[in-house]
Amino acid sequence: MAEKITPRATDYSKWYLDIVKEAGLADHSDVRGCMVIKPTGYAIWEKMQRALDGLFKASGHVNAYFPLFIPMSYLAKEEEMAEGFAKECAVVTHYRLKSEKGKGLYVDPEAKLEEPLIIRPTSETIIWKTYKNWIQSWRDLPLLINQWCNVVRWEMRTRLFLRTAEFLWQEGHTAHSSQEEAEKEAHMILLDAYAAFAEQWMAMPVLTGPKSDGQRFPGAVYTLCIEAMMQDGKALQAGTSHFLGQNFAKAFDVQFLNKNQQHEYAWATSWGVSTRLIGGLIMTHSDDNGLVIPPRLASTHVVICPLGKNDNERAPAHDAAVKLAAELRELPREDFFGYEPISVKIDTMFDKQPGFRFAEHELRGVPVRIEIGPKDLEKQACVMGRRDKPGKEGKEFGVPLVGAARRIRDLLVEIQQNLFNRAKTYRDNMTRPVDSYEQFKEEIEKGGFLMAHWDGTRETEDKIQQETQATIRCIPFDRAKEEGKCVVTGNPSAGRVAFARAY
Amino acid sequence: MAEKITPRATDYSKWYLDIVKEAGLADHSDVRGCMVIKPTGYAIWEKMQRALDGLFKASGHVNAYFPLFIPMSYLAKEEEMAEGFAKECAVVTHYRLKSEKGKGLYVDPEAKLEEPLIIRPTSETIIWKTYKNWIQSWRDLPLLINQWCNVVRWEMRTRLFLRTAEFLWQEGHTAHSSQEEAEKEAHMILLDAYAAFAEQWMAMPVLTGPKSDGQRFPGAVYTLCIEAMMQDGKALQAGTSHFLGQNFAKAFDVQFLNKNQQHEYAWATSWGVSTRLIGGLIMTHSDDNGLVIPPRLASTHVVICPLGKNDNERAPAHDAAVKLAAELRELPREDFFGYEPISVKIDTMFDKQPGFRFAEHELRGVPVRIEIGPKDLEKQACVMGRRDKPGKEGKEFGVPLVGAARRIRDLLVEIQQNLFNRAKTYRDNMTRPVDSYEQFKEEIEKGGFLMAHWDGTRETEDKIQQETQATIRCIPFDRAKEEGKCVVTGNPSAGRVAFARAY
Repeated sequence: MAEKITPRATDYSKWYLDIVKEAGLADHSDVRGCMVIKPTGYAIWEKMQRALDGLFKASGHVNAYFPLFIPMSYLAKEEEMAEGFAKECAVVTHYRLKSEKGKGLYVDPEAKLEEPLIIRPTSETIIWKTYKNWIQSWRDLPLLINQWCNVVRWEMRTRLFLRTAEFLWQEGHTAHSSQEEAEKEAHMILLDAYAAFAEQWMAMPVLTGPKSDGQRFPGAVYTLCIEAMMQDGKALQAGTSHFLGQNFAKAFDVQFLNKNQQHEYAWATSWGVSTRLIGGLIMTHSDDNGLVIPPRLASTHVVICPLGKNDNERAPAHDAAVKLAAELRELPREDFFGYEPISVKIDTMFDKQPGFRFAEHELRGVPVRIEIGPKDLEKQACVMGRRDKPGKEGKEFGVPLVGAARRIRDLLVEIQQNLFNRAKTYRDNMTRPVDSYEQFKEEIEKGGFLMAHWDGTRETEDKIQQETQATIRCIPFDRAKEEGKCVVTGNPSAGRVAFARAY
Repeated sequence: MAEKITPRATDYSKWYLDIVKEAGLADHSDVRGCMVIKPTGYAIWEKMQRALDGLFKASGHVNAYFPLFIPMSYLAKEEEMAEGFAKECAVVTHYRLKSEKGKGLYVDPEAKLEEPLIIRPTSETIIWKTYKNWIQSWRDLPLLINQWCNVVRWEMRTRLFLRTAEFLWQEGHTAHSSQEEAEKEAHMILLDAYAAFAEQWMAMPVLTGPKSDGQRFPGAVYTLCIEAMMQDGKALQAGTSHFLGQNFAKAFDVQFLNKNQQHEYAWATSWGVSTRLIGGLIMTHSDDNGLVIPPRLASTHVVICPLGKNDNERAPAHDAAVKLAAELRELPREDFFGYEPISVKIDTMFDKQPGFRFAEHELRGVPVRIEIGPKDLEKQACVMGRRDKPGKEGKEFGVPLVGAARRIRDLLVEIQQNLFNRAKTYRDNMTRPVDSYEQFKEEIEKGGFLMAHWDGTRETEDKIQQETQATIRCIPFDRAKEEGKCVVTGNPSAGRVAFARAY
């Protein structure tokens, strides 16, 4: 069908790039490591933003905007963060160009900044510098602020959506009057926002839990994550929520007067998800025919294809399509679609063969395709195709047009659930215990999550990574209580952790 | 009442800054020329975005995202644009920092970029470079794309919202197969999106029409604008829509095969509005007591203040407030509020005096304030205060609680209209004809739009600006057909144009 798409089995990386390009999601730009997010890809991001923003606001968060530029000296204030991001910083050193006949445009050497400015790789430093002015008393807390913006990390090896020099994200930065409240916030965001969004909107099952110390965010006390499993057996870190302790409050001297009239450093969290999620979405559901998008994130839910050999045959089919489209748009709005109407398009590519038209819709991942041809109309019926499964409903006897709208709506709900179930079955099948390092090294070649005992040391973690390229992805919240022995050292372990090779 | 706010008559600039700071809209950041948009200010921007995005999408536009970085050589491709923006460019020259014990963090001299990257001041160049890959045939046109993003223009004199080094905006970039279609697009955006948004959402009347050549956007064939009048008699350019001709298509060699199988350069428009609109909103409506926000852009439409000397008195008032709030939220959603529910807050600052509480809500510009105290409850009534007018309704006899919700809704609609009418009356009063240069120089000191005959030359325009600091703000579409003589040169003029001093 989709000859433009390299099959997964042939070359998974090529398959991914083919999907991104052929479905019109993104392009490489001429600027090193930066991508152009095309309208179809950006529409997915808008849907993601809308849903996440709703979850954040429902839990009391508000949006704000902080500067793109971070003075180099701010970054230096938090040692771990400086260390962690120094190697990937885009640096602004000048503020003016000059233009001369013959010489063209050049950087004006006289317009050098006194202090270099970093393009934000993440905004803890500039935000906590600002919070110092906003926080005086316990009455000013909590501050529950989120920012939607672009950030830059000068990555050497980039891949569309998954790892780009510039990317779009949201970063939450909260300040609290107690450790307990801050830790609760970090957990709440991970579970009630990120995991909920991943599973209920993206239909992408995730492991949830803390990272090991080796995978912790620079500047955090600990990092919680949602971790997903891609179709090639590699893991994807899809979102992180950090408990930052008092690290940034101390770095920027943010103290508040507590209820006992004592000065105390504020407690912090930060958390983010990015356009990387679009990469995760693609690699969770799509197939060799193209994109597969769960209905809750699809900008077009239903495409209706009127069929017929000529204008005479197509006219009544087109009329029926228009009628069905109107019925779909007028269905009572339900929470499932974020109270937005069902989005329907009518395919009028009449100069193309039906096979070509269907393949186009498959490539773009439209969840439901309705075909209405002359023979269907004789039966006052249509044929329904769903993107998540092969085959068509109503191919022999037809699905009656009367009541079709409600049936399509139910089908969209079913597809959303089916995609999640399918991804979860896959993920669960790819997750298995290993009990020796021998077995670990063998199994890791097959991909997936390996649940193995680990002695809790950084040393062992590093050794495993060096020897197998596998990292600890997550120490799952819901792991069984099971004491055991580390697969490498034989030292005692409090429970299994999830290892995988990762993006 | 609002002692924190300098009265307009005392110091208009100070008044503006006081409003911005005391209403919690924005702060200066420590980064030169960059602001922090605080949650209350950002909420206004979100409302603006939602409305504008809806208008763009309703006319067939889609969103996308292009890189923050522009290679210096791209900017150089369009001479006028290079000339126009060179002096304000933030330049990235390095991509790595280094950290050394004792030496701290510094820019790694070995990580110098081969070609400097400019932080986008506007994205025509990078977008047309990309369009070259997207446009081959007339079938690929029109491209109707918009981008929401941050841009940087290294301004020397900055003012919160009105002029900042970094600001948020949207920039539309469209490509068309004919000059006629592109010109129609530029006009449509100006009138049906920008002017409609300014007048119907912001309640801010605007002049519409082309700029003179002296005020044209660098790279444009002509620039259309919406131009508003602030309360100090200065004009504000609130949005621009440019017809770019084939300038960028030629600079980046974007040709398409037309229906006659001939290669032709594509026709372009670009258009943008920014967070500057928030400055315009403040300076159009606010007063010496604080912010005034038109209901369609207010994040809180109604605040209900239960009153009473003690808990016993306040409890029934609070119950009545909760009931009224629920009634307001459950009113049928109407287009006026973008189909969102009416947003209501209940003020529970019971440790503060009523006067303080009311002043707080005034300061923050909540359009409607409802007071419910023990005496009102005896009459099963409440008192209504509206932000746009002094005085209260129901102070003597009370406004019955039964039916109050619908009455409040109608009041919100009325306030929206009243704010527009008031601003328009002011603008119209500040707009007057002048017929000699003598009179011009005298009248310009009083502010406002001076409608004067002009001979159409750049020379005269520049002379007037040098001598009076007034510029041609707009050549209004709806100006009367009236031949006359230029106030400066006496040369013939085809009609009056609008002069003003401007932000």
